[in-house]
Amino acid sequence: HSSFSGEATGAVQLNGIMSRAKVLTIDTMNPTVKKVEYAVRGPIVQRAVELERELSEGMKKPFAEVIKANIGDAHAMGQQPITFFRQVLALCSYPELLSDSTFPEDAKSRACRILQSCGGNSMGSYSASQGIDSVRQDVARYIERRDGGVACDPDNIYLTTGASDGIVTMLKLLVCGEGTTRTGVMIPIPQYPLYSAALAELGAVQINYFLNEEKCWSLDITELQRAVNEARQYCNPRALCIINPGNPTGQVQSRQCIEDVIRFAAKERLFLMADEVYQDNVYAEGCQFHSFKKVLFEMGPEYAETVELASFHSTSKCYMGECGFRGGYMEIINMDDEVKDQLTKLLSVRLCPPVPGQALMDLVVNPPQPGEPSYGSFIKERTATLSALAEKAKLTEQVLNTVQGISCNPVQGAMYSFPRITIPEKAVKEATETGQQPDMFYCMKMLEETGICLVPGSGFGQKDGTYHFRMTILPPTDKLKILLNKVKEFHQRFTQQYS
Amino acid sequence: HSSFSGEATGAVQLNGIMSRAKVLTIDTMNPTVKKVEYAVRGPIVQRAVELERELSEGMKKPFAEVIKANIGDAHAMGQQPITFFRQVLALCSYPELLSDSTFPEDAKSRACRILQSCGGNSMGSYSASQGIDSVRQDVARYIERRDGGVACDPDNIYLTTGASDGIVTMLKLLVCGEGTTRTGVMIPIPQYPLYSAALAELGAVQINYFLNEEKCWSLDITELQRAVNEARQYCNPRALCIINPGNPTGQVQSRQCIEDVIRFAAKERLFLMADEVYQDNVYAEGCQFHSFKKVLFEMGPEYAETVELASFHSTSKCYMGECGFRGGYMEIINMDDEVKDQLTKLLSVRLCPPVPGQALMDLVVNPPQPGEPSYGSFIKERTATLSALAEKAKLTEQVLNTVQGISCNPVQGAMYSFPRITIPEKAVKEATETGQQPDMFYCMKMLEETGICLVPGSGFGQKDGTYHFRMTILPPTDKLKILLNKVKEFHQRFTQQYS
Repeated sequence: HSSFSGEATGAVQLNGIMSRAKVLTIDTMNPTVKKVEYAVRGPIVQRAVELERELSEGMKKPFAEVIKANIGDAHAMGQQPITFFRQVLALCSYPELLSDSTFPEDAKSRACRILQSCGGNSMGSYSASQGIDSVRQDVARYIERRDGGVACDPDNIYLTTGASDGIVTMLKLLVCGEGTTRTGVMIPIPQYPLYSAALAELGAVQINYFLNEEKCWSLDITELQRAVNEARQYCNPRALCIINPGNPTGQVQSRQCIEDVIRFAAKERLFLMADEVYQDNVYAEGCQFHSFKKVLFEMGPEYAETVELASFHSTSKCYMGECGFRGGYMEIINMDDEVKDQLTKLLSVRLCPPVPGQALMDLVVNPPQPGEPSYGSFIKERTATLSALAEKAKLTEQVLNTVQGISCNPVQGAMYSFPRITIPEKAVKEATETGQQPDMFYCMKMLEETGICLVPGSGFGQKDGTYHFRMTILPPTDKLKILLNKVKEFHQRFTQQYS
Repeated sequence: HSSFSGEATGAVQLNGIMSRAKVLTIDTMNPTVKKVEYAVRGPIVQRAVELERELSEGMKKPFAEVIKANIGDAHAMGQQPITFFRQVLALCSYPELLSDSTFPEDAKSRACRILQSCGGNSMGSYSASQGIDSVRQDVARYIERRDGGVACDPDNIYLTTGASDGIVTMLKLLVCGEGTTRTGVMIPIPQYPLYSAALAELGAVQINYFLNEEKCWSLDITELQRAVNEARQYCNPRALCIINPGNPTGQVQSRQCIEDVIRFAAKERLFLMADEVYQDNVYAEGCQFHSFKKVLFEMGPEYAETVELASFHSTSKCYMGECGFRGGYMEIINMDDEVKDQLTKLLSVRLCPPVPGQALMDLVVNPPQPGEPSYGSFIKERTATLSALAEKAKLTEQVLNTVQGISCNPVQGAMYSFPRITIPEKAVKEATETGQQPDMFYCMKMLEETGICLVPGSGFGQKDGTYHFRMTILPPTDKLKILLNKVKEFHQRFTQQYS
């Protein structure tokens, strides 16, 4: 209902009731918030939720269920949590269970160690803003093991509310200047839209560098150079974001590539941000995860002592898939001491990351060891999940590549395929006429006809005139097969319809 | 180690090693972040943590332990969690326990309901960004019961990562304009420093209205009017924040006062933000909690249908004290629909609030009912905690008021006393000469001599020339008595020393 603002009080008589113009409207709200977009939970997902409700209300649809392949939500897709992790969390939640003989001793000892680090031995206490000391120590030891002994100082570890929280916090520190001196941040295209959303909200300049689809979404230094050179004309490029393994693109960077990126960052004076939340999700033969930290330190003191790096990890991905706990950490290398103090101060305003997420992060970095009672079942569960993911990565690539008009790079890592799709001219035209991106038009049609919810490539960014979608490989194999066949049939139908 | 920036690459030869000027320094970081202050975890707490470490390393101190009375961290102070809540959390974490006969049936049915609302029946799944549907429904029913039947729509409920998250999000929506049209936000002085910190970070204008210490920290409408009139000369006042029961000041607002505030907000066209996280913490005779929502709706459609209100609650305070889980909710009234869409979009970027915190929030709003097996123990535990808090509120006021030079208003509610202290001229001079606020000087001395960590009043704001500290009433009664006597002795010693 509309109303006009009165002179003195902003109130007018309307239908006999005093009515006031709203204080907060779309025209008077924060303009940077309006610019934020986040396709992974955008309009297509809202429609998917609506469809689910309509189905549950008995409405007839050409499908029996909505399959949300839009987001890397492992447990929602049926992946089982690691038993050991959940046992420890139950013990930490309700310590009376410590006297329950059905819980294994290693779960109990982990729980005791976590609780001893909590105020009043309770997960209900605030932790230090940087995170629980003993958890940060365990993270540091994990990183040292992972990186073949490269030293890690627990003081450089900050526990976070998922990786997103750490990434936004680091970007926040980096933003300054106005006009042509405004901070620019380089991000890959396609990207994970947290980056574009955070940059929009912070009013920073997004500098796109394009991954090379023809070379399996690899990163070319010449493209980085092009992007930074152009950007220097209109902003101040200060940071370079890398997602490895890639999201949504699934590529795994070679050691050489990482070295080149570090050299480039040093030369161009860029703060490096390495999003490594998929570090255990590497499937392709010959591919291996190399952390930026490790490569940086192997390049000698010229780099190891100068290049500023923040790297991010999370409990949400890998074999854990514990998204709901919002656990994560970041490691900060070569950060100026005064800035570090500012970072700690900034984090303190939000008090602390959720303690159950911190506990879970601790278990991820300090899982059962050989000789401990839970070791066998832990390894079995972890291996089963990772092997299934590897199998599904392969399956997805294979099936999609049998479809004319779909071309899918190998899913070397992470949890998604990002195939290129050919959209007929007629469909592009119809989409454009209705004010939609052609791949949004495509994905909306797929959702309405099949119940499959994917995210259009335009939500991640792509080269002009190319179209893609992101699909998780997470559904159980039998379900994934059905899903892939439905995608295949839809694509064929769609192509025919618009040819 | 210092270095100069080289011409082309920012690199110089230093001690034979290539050295680069840092990309991110105190001079090149986000200037708004530098302006953020958060006294509750500020320098005095850092010193307290250092002292704890020194004690643990065997260093001799004039005290045996550091007592952190700086923060409302109930479990860290020995308060026990509610058994029922933790049983349900354990069941949700490790659902195998659902077949354990030692868990009560009502805990199991709550756990099943929560898990059924989680993707894949796992707390490890992302929830909807607005929060789990069934939890939001339970919150709505709780609000209806609390407010004597005033209707509550679950669509207006947003689950948050503690109350802080909701408050910052709402402020973020409200900020716009430049110069004299920049958004101004009215906050009480003394305030909880999340507000000043968030406003500094957002670059909004902080508009102080002073609570009346002489009238038990009550809120005068004339003072609100003075503040908003003055502010209109240099900014655009758009929001009014209220903390009730008060933090750090402990006052509980009368129904009449709330009505006057709502009328004022309507007249001045201000978005109301009601921080009601201490809604169960009311101790003083004759005091009662009235929610802004309830009063607003009782004022009739002229207000109920127009005044924009966001109110905030949390799992961290009241009788629960579950700070570490970072649970909370906000209720939004009369928000413009388009802005609501923007809010939902903004929240989606951070995916979802921590699911264990959502589960805990659900238990707070849907605790055991009469006839259920856990009802008796729940009521017993809740009553014991709240009675102990009431007793400690009284005790704190009484003991502090026996000290010459300390004057303490009744702690009507919340978890803190905020007494006024007289600091001798000589001490004020010495503090000023060393660049410290006099009450920071006082609190630092107290920490060094007694191990007691308080927060100086300057961290919350106070009238010029007055000094205070904030102290939680949370320590167990016997410990609180010792603490209060130590404060008393210190104050007498300090006064003598500087007289």
